[in-house]
This record gives sequence, structure tokens and C-alpha cells, in this order.
Amino acid sequence: MANLFTLGALDGGARRGRLQLAHGAVETPCFMPVGTAATVKGLTPAELREAHTQIVLANTYHLWLRPGKETIEAAGGLHAFMAWDGPILTDSGGFQVFSLEGRRRLDDEGVTFASHLDGSEHRFTPESVIGFQEAIGSDVAMLLDVCVKLPASREELEESVRLTAAWARRSAAVPPSGATLRFAIVQGGLDAALRERSARELVELDFAGYAVGGLSVGETRAEMYATARATAALLPEAKPRYLMGVGTVRDLVAAVDCGIDLFDCVYPTRCGRNGRAMTSGGELNIFNAPFTRDFSPLDPSCDCSTCTNFSRAYLAHLFRAKEMLGPRLLSYHNVYLVNALMRAARDAIAAGEWALFRDRASG
Amino acid sequence: MANLFTLGALDGGARRGRLQLAHGAVETPCFMPVGTAATVKGLTPAELREAHTQIVLANTYHLWLRPGKETIEAAGGLHAFMAWDGPILTDSGGFQVFSLEGRRRLDDEGVTFASHLDGSEHRFTPESVIGFQEAIGSDVAMLLDVCVKLPASREELEESVRLTAAWARRSAAVPPSGATLRFAIVQGGLDAALRERSARELVELDFAGYAVGGLSVGETRAEMYATARATAALLPEAKPRYLMGVGTVRDLVAAVDCGIDLFDCVYPTRCGRNGRAMTSGGELNIFNAPFTRDFSPLDPSCDCSTCTNFSRAYLAHLFRAKEMLGPRLLSYHNVYLVNALMRAARDAIAAGEWALFRDRASG
Repeated sequence: MANLFTLGALDGGARRGRLQLAHGAVETPCFMPVGTAATVKGLTPAELREAHTQIVLANTYHLWLRPGKETIEAAGGLHAFMAWDGPILTDSGGFQVFSLEGRRRLDDEGVTFASHLDGSEHRFTPESVIGFQEAIGSDVAMLLDVCVKLPASREELEESVRLTAAWARRSAAVPPSGATLRFAIVQGGLDAALRERSARELVELDFAGYAVGGLSVGETRAEMYATARATAALLPEAKPRYLMGVGTVRDLVAAVDCGIDLFDCVYPTRCGRNGRAMTSGGELNIFNAPFTRDFSPLDPSCDCSTCTNFSRAYLAHLFRAKEMLGPRLLSYHNVYLVNALMRAARDAIAAGEWALFRDRASG
Repeated sequence: MANLFTLGALDGGARRGRLQLAHGAVETPCFMPVGTAATVKGLTPAELREAHTQIVLANTYHLWLRPGKETIEAAGGLHAFMAWDGPILTDSGGFQVFSLEGRRRLDDEGVTFASHLDGSEHRFTPESVIGFQEAIGSDVAMLLDVCVKLPASREELEESVRLTAAWARRSAAVPPSGATLRFAIVQGGLDAALRERSARELVELDFAGYAVGGLSVGETRAEMYATARATAALLPEAKPRYLMGVGTVRDLVAAVDCGIDLFDCVYPTRCGRNGRAMTSGGELNIFNAPFTRDFSPLDPSCDCSTCTNFSRAYLAHLFRAKEMLGPRLLSYHNVYLVNALMRAARDAIAAGEWALFRDRASG
């Protein structure tokens, strides 16, 4: 396989790279806005581009249930269906299925679950999940893994590591179809030995990239960073590394410092819908009373169309009046801001100024 | 006063005109999308422009209560507040206040009412309503009128006509401030004699334009058209005529045929939010099952960005998944379609082909 990931500058733990995918190149570190149901909530593909989005994430569990594989295939694939012609990473749906406590049965071959929409029964196996993602034309498919909520017993974690590796071997045996890359997901909770074992078992199988899974699920920030850093160090330098579920400014900066290249999180869009703005001066709640008479932009140092055109007072009015334009404008700003943060991080790493950037951005 | 309305072609009952306002010219016949709370629901000003919107409507009652006059004045006026630099017409709020049955007290001097938001007491008078609209910088202010729901007794209608004229005289006595034009509203229900009296009393006062009020409030379509046509005939040819609350394709075409120049209605955006698309082939409900596998555009003859980029199947998916992008894309299309209808109507009138256009568009 050609080397699809090119590592450029290294600066401390931080990495500057480039991932070539079927629908375009992704400059890393890179944040991927989440489009669970084939739409980044409230935003059009044109706006995602304008906000400098390079790649979006979509969700196998949700798309499997609705609209379903047949519809997406009939549309000509996920890109055509959602009218986004840039790269798409799809997660395996494992995280969602394992969240369906009481509605799923795990066995060695896969997991059977009841749809949260209509209770209908479905089954994920390593093969069916890879097959789905390749059929809909994802640029990057995530393998089916076994995710556990923290805190978890050693037995649960061991079982998750064992099955995740077994399923990865079965995934690797599926003949590739199309140009979809496959990323494996390292499990092991906060246990260093289990993380080491999980990483070793997956790296042996030589996937195109590796995710650090099983974090952002109940542990402390310090625990998350420590495990992300230790796990990243176990992964091949020449392959992209993806930390799942991270999307605050503080966490993104910390995770880049741990040597991670890719991130996704609903945080920027969920906050946007709820009136929480991410700004260069920290987060703010647009419902706070003073904003109703504040005619300055959301973030005076941001050049996005929300900050260029609208005042805090207008946004505060939209949210108080429950006008849908409010969530839309704030979601756009938050995605733009996170993308700008990643762009600045890439520049800082390339310029050898990562430590300075990190300390300023985290402050 | 300079002649701000220029009548171009006449074709049958239909009129082609041009209304010069402080923030730009409006080619008529023209539909005004409704931005009740200083936002056309779900759409940005840039999108309204792109959809060929010439003028938007905002609502005095709603803006009076929230965010209030002081905030809008502090923002530099309504245009700056909502970041729309084109013309704005504000209605007087009379319609909303008279809908607050049991929460408002009418007297000869004005109407006192309880806010639907917090129960606080407010009072509209002809003077306060004109003052509000001029203070926030509307291009066109509507006079406070007395609106009655149909069917209504002769006494109610007479009283509405009497007070509407008395209040119009008081409005006319308010010294103008700024470049805001004032339009009076003809009342009289379906009673020809009362309509005639109302029109005569208001026309004597020489306002910049006249609205046909008190329709779209419970009467049949035939009654509405007959009254609109008869009332239009009572109004000066050289002044713009505005029919309030009309926004379906059928009603717009019929009303243009009655000699009306301006229209507003929540219909296109409300339908858009609820999954109802207005198309050149009639209306369609995006929730209908066949659309989930229909990869053609919403309206194959529409060149709006929704129809250019997205399929019916994708829109059906968004609505079923309750994704906010769905209402947004459908609202945009509906506004675009109604604006395109009005543009085509203007062309047809100018070309002397109105009857042909009307019969085809109504069919």
C-alpha cells in the first residue's frame, strides 16, 4: 500500500501531517465535525467548506437504521446522498450499540441490538460493519470494537481488548472494496498493560490508522491525557492517530500535545445549538443577560460570517425568541473556531512554536 | 412628496410597478417574506438576497415586546440589528393585538394588552405605533387599525371602520421622522359599502400606500378575491396596494389579477418548516413514503441551491431524522419559489402576457 500519511514537522509531542484520502487530502492535526445522520446539524456542505472543514464524520449505527444502506447506495453513496464531496470518516457504530444497555446482546461473533427508533432487531459483526462503510463509500472506515464505560473491572477491560483484537483480525480478512481506508481502535481503559497489549495486537495487523478509543467516557481529564499520550507512543509513527470524542479547545490542544492527529466531537455543534459559544477568550453563554445589549461580535478576533455580520445582542435575541437562526449561526461559529484553532496549531507546529502556542491556547 | 411609486405596465387587472424605498427599490408585484422577530425563520440575510428577496416584513407587536425599542435603537435600527440592508416593512401589530382575545381592552384612544410572553401590560396608540416603527427605521410603517375576525356583525365592522379612520387621522397628524413611508389599512370585512367608506376616508388623508386588511381571516377564497378586487378598485391607481396575509401560489396569482402589488405571508416558511414544499407542479409533503427513495430534486424546474444540491430522498431523510437542516433547506426553496413566481409575473405583465401566465400558474 502506498504511504497515504505523510508526517511533516514534529515539535515536542505534536505532529504536523497530511492524510491522503479518496476524496481529498486532510492536513493534520484536524478536527472532524460530526454529521451523525449524514448532516452536520444545521449546516450545509457549502458552509462546512467555507468554515474550512476538511473531513466530516458520519455514524454507521444511525445511517444503518435510517435511511439504511440500500437508500444510500441507490443515491450513489454517502457523499452524493449528503452532497458533501470531501472526505468522510464513518465510525463503526460500536460506541452507540454498546451504549444501548439492556437492548443489546454481545457474543463472540458480533452484537445483536434493538433499534432505538422502532425496536427492530439488527446485528453488527466485524464484517457487516466494514461492508456497510465500504458500500456507502466512506473514505475511512472504523473497525467494530468493544467499548466499555469507565470505571470498568479488569475483566471487562480484558474481554474488550480480546474481542476488539479478534474482530480486528476478522476485519482484516475482509477483502478490500473501493478506496476506503480502515482504522483500528485501541481499547484497554486506563490500564497501561492492557493498552499496550491492545495496541500491539492491532499494530501487528498493519491498518492504515489507529484510534485511541474508550476515552471521554467518564474518566478525569488528567487520566484521559495520560492514557492518550501513553497510547499514542505505542502506535507507529508513520500512521495517523485519532482520538475519539474530543472537541473542546482545552482538550484539543492537550491531545495534539499527546501526538494525536485527528479528532471528532459533537461538542462544537451541540454547544452551538444550546447557546454556548466557543471563543478565543473562552466559552460564553449567549443567554447571559448582559449580551442582550452587547453589540460587539461573538468573538472580536474571529472572521467567520457569524462574527462579521451579527452582534451578540442579535444572537441573544434569536436564542431568547427560540429562532432557529440562532443555533445555526452559533454552530457555524463554533465549527469555524475549532477549525481555525487546528489551522493555527498546524502553523505553530510547522514553525517550531508549538509549546508557545499550546501554553497560550490552553491559558 | 415625490412620487415614490411608479406604475409601469398594466395588463388586465394586473399591475407592474416600482416602489422606491429608503433602503432600495422594490419591483412589484412583490412577495415579502415574513421575519416576525427580526429573522425570516431559518434564513440569513445573505440567503434572502440570493433567493431574490427584495423586502422583508417584521412585526411591531413582537419586536415591541422583545427585544424592545431601546435595544433596536441602540443597535442602530432594525436593519443593523438584523443585518438586512434592504427594505423592511413593519406591520402595526394591530392584527396580533386583536388576536389576543380576553387579554386586550380597546378604547377610542388605543388598545391596552397583556404580553403573551410575561403578561406585562402594554398600550398601542396610533401615535405610539407609528413612533415605534419610525424609531427602528422601517422603510414602510403600517398604521394601527382595528381588525375583526370574520364572520363579524355589521356593528363590529362599522366600529372597526370608524376607529380605523379616526386612528388614521391621528397617525397622519404625527410629524414624519426619517424616511419611513406610511400605509393605511382599509377595513370593512366583506361589506362593499363599508369597504367603500373605509377606502374613501383613508384615501382622503393621502397616505403613501394602502393595504387591504381584514382578509385571510376566515372567509372563503371567492369572498377574499371579490373583496380584494373591489377594494383595489377604490384605491388610487398611483399608490401601491398591499394585500396582507396572502402567500400560496394560487392566492398570489389571483391577488395580482385583482390589481394588488405587495403581499406577505408566513405560508412559505411555515410550510418549509413542516415539510411542505411549494413546487411548480403543486405542493408536496416530503414525509410521503415514495420520497424516501426519490433522488430527483424537489422541483426539477427550480434552480435554487436546495434543488441544485439535494434530492427529495435526502430532504425526506432530514425531516424523518428531525434534522434542522431540513426545515432550513425547504424554507429556502419555498421563499425562492415564491420570489421566482413574482418575478415571472412581473415579466408576464410587462410582456402583455398576464392572462396566459395567470391561467397557466393557477392551473
